[in-house]
Amino acid sequence: VKAEIVAVGSELLDPLRRETNGAYVTGGLRSIGVDVLARTTVADDAAWLEQAFRQALSRADVVIATGGLGPTADDLTREAAARAAGRALKRDAGLLEALEARFARFGRVMAPVNAQQADLIDGATSLPNARGSAPGQYLDHEGRLLFLLPGPPGEMQPMFDGQVLPIVRERAGGRALVTRVLKIASMGESDVEQVVAPLYKTFENPRTTILGGAGQTELHLTGEGADEAEAGARVEELAAGIRGLLPGRIYSEDGRDLAEVVAALLTERQVSLALAESCTGGLVAARITAVPGSSAFFEGGYVTYSNRAKVDLLGVDPSVLERHGAVSEETARAMADGVRRATGSDLAVAITGIAGPTGATEDKPVGLVFLALAGDGVDRVRRAQFPGERDRVRAQAAQAALEMVRRALLGLSPA
Amino acid sequence: VKAEIVAVGSELLDPLRRETNGAYVTGGLRSIGVDVLARTTVADDAAWLEQAFRQALSRADVVIATGGLGPTADDLTREAAARAAGRALKRDAGLLEALEARFARFGRVMAPVNAQQADLIDGATSLPNARGSAPGQYLDHEGRLLFLLPGPPGEMQPMFDGQVLPIVRERAGGRALVTRVLKIASMGESDVEQVVAPLYKTFENPRTTILGGAGQTELHLTGEGADEAEAGARVEELAAGIRGLLPGRIYSEDGRDLAEVVAALLTERQVSLALAESCTGGLVAARITAVPGSSAFFEGGYVTYSNRAKVDLLGVDPSVLERHGAVSEETARAMADGVRRATGSDLAVAITGIAGPTGATEDKPVGLVFLALAGDGVDRVRRAQFPGERDRVRAQAAQAALEMVRRALLGLSPA
Repeated sequence: VKAEIVAVGSELLDPLRRETNGAYVTGGLRSIGVDVLARTTVADDAAWLEQAFRQALSRADVVIATGGLGPTADDLTREAAARAAGRALKRDAGLLEALEARFARFGRVMAPVNAQQADLIDGATSLPNARGSAPGQYLDHEGRLLFLLPGPPGEMQPMFDGQVLPIVRERAGGRALVTRVLKIASMGESDVEQVVAPLYKTFENPRTTILGGAGQTELHLTGEGADEAEAGARVEELAAGIRGLLPGRIYSEDGRDLAEVVAALLTERQVSLALAESCTGGLVAARITAVPGSSAFFEGGYVTYSNRAKVDLLGVDPSVLERHGAVSEETARAMADGVRRATGSDLAVAITGIAGPTGATEDKPVGLVFLALAGDGVDRVRRAQFPGERDRVRAQAAQAALEMVRRALLGLSPA
Repeated sequence: VKAEIVAVGSELLDPLRRETNGAYVTGGLRSIGVDVLARTTVADDAAWLEQAFRQALSRADVVIATGGLGPTADDLTREAAARAAGRALKRDAGLLEALEARFARFGRVMAPVNAQQADLIDGATSLPNARGSAPGQYLDHEGRLLFLLPGPPGEMQPMFDGQVLPIVRERAGGRALVTRVLKIASMGESDVEQVVAPLYKTFENPRTTILGGAGQTELHLTGEGADEAEAGARVEELAAGIRGLLPGRIYSEDGRDLAEVVAALLTERQVSLALAESCTGGLVAARITAVPGSSAFFEGGYVTYSNRAKVDLLGVDPSVLERHGAVSEETARAMADGVRRATGSDLAVAITGIAGPTGATEDKPVGLVFLALAGDGVDRVRRAQFPGERDRVRAQAAQAALEMVRRALLGLSPA
């Protein structure tokens, strides 16, 4: 079963605008085993739109259009789709009545132009829209399914999930796809690939994709089955194998990011955390405090960018800075001790490094970062050399700091 | 002159993947007065691809395809475009030699499959690719311009800017478009609209679009002219009028964000800054330190999430917290004074508020934020009520804190 998506609206072609319905619909269709082969965004132009529908109806089993169902002269989706299918548009008395009632409920009289929202393609069924005035519609045209949905994501998404997917799933023979994402913070993409490729390549189902980001590698496993339970079991079989190959490395399989996972661990174990950030400049604190409820464990953080701040706020011994430099194992450790002393937290993390573009020396290149973790019986320091420019170095350092906390809490070796 | 864009590659249809070439090419074409009427992403499927090219060549004056020019069996763009145009593919001897030389330079022998990268559509001209092995090509097909470009943005963008745009511009009659973005942090979208709409609606050229974000309103002015100078003059005429209607409100017209503008002001005036953040949890520090060179003025920051941290780290009087609560004008002021005392900075900003979802009371709803700015002869406090959920409240509060600094530095009234 092949699908094609048509997004309607000149405003979606603005280079600053991001069309999000296409990705949402693609994800939903994949979850029921339907592949999307083309996704088109078309301006509000009657001829171009009709051609888009004509092409889609000539080759796709399922065609899903979003947008262009409003009441204005620019809203051409109904008409263009009807022409492409060679069918008439008919005003539906029931829909018209419902539209008028909706306006009356808001104390307004319906303008005549709104009546076009009650037009149905000959043979189509209306799809109710609980959140807006434009109903959708669906047509079985010579064995091909055509759906017209409104453009606002808040209206489109529940209609797609609740009304479109069940119909398409039946047509697709009820196959189900399940995707699970395994997230790893302590290994790069190629290292993960080397370890797990010999295993996942023996599986045709699930399929596996590797995605690398700043301080993060993701394994996307997509399994197929007669239903969600079977597809899920396929995914679990491979996931279990990968877990065995990467002990302690996978921090999340449920969509949560690393800050959420660390926050949950700290909350659960009632361990408090404090931060001293130099090169990350507050990034770790911002990520931690983005998690609701972080006040339960977060004692406070310092952004000590200058040497003076490291001395004045954290009580770092000036002679340590002088002897070893601000970017050193010794300074990182002194920062962690200092913030722990000041806040009385159970754990303290310190990060100092060279994010660039300036500040590098011959011995200390851009991307050199020291991380220290201090606590009762905990004393870990890590030296890392991160690739990339300022933003990327900062993001990787923040991720490494969170991973350092996670590994210590779980009794895993330092990264 | 109407354009259509075709992005080739099954991987681009992954719901997690974002196709960026389309927006880049659309932006470039608009800058020379060419409208994009359709943008299609197609899987690596020979029949679907050929249909996409056939449709595009039947209606668009300019067709730009990206991707599918590599050496593998999945790279079908050349063949599909040639078929759609009814032309043969011919192996180009010069291109083949250049390809082989490229492999030799990297000390490798070229695999036979790579040779297809030397295929040109009959009548097409090769477009050199300085950063990759796949050359592009361009064809004038019955008065319609067809361009095939490689998919990696790092290869595509310089080829598009340097080789495609000049050809299209000539075809488009040399009209130029210039876009300028006026950014405002201290007024919401509808307030800005109300003030400036009566003016900008009297202009057909430039066109104006308003975009609202978290703590930010943007006015996009796009002017058209015979050349960039004329288009720019049109934009400046309207921009000058808008400046007059919004005195002191526009913080940027050159693409910089608010943190960059504030960093430049602080550096230029040699004023140092320190921060005390509660509900924003390090967001302001992270934004400030994201600007290279921020160590010149940034004295340090505190993330004091808990009452205890406010007392222990910032020296806030516990009785102030008790009497007025952590989210109050008095606490904000005490936090700003405390951080200034600790760091010796010229200016200090403090932010305390309720980001949600928990922590609200009857008097103090989610979104209530107090901001304080302290300095020699500077004592400003602002109470704000921001709409939205946790992330949005935090983003708006961070933006408001930066705007508070900007306005004080420029001698403008508090927001």
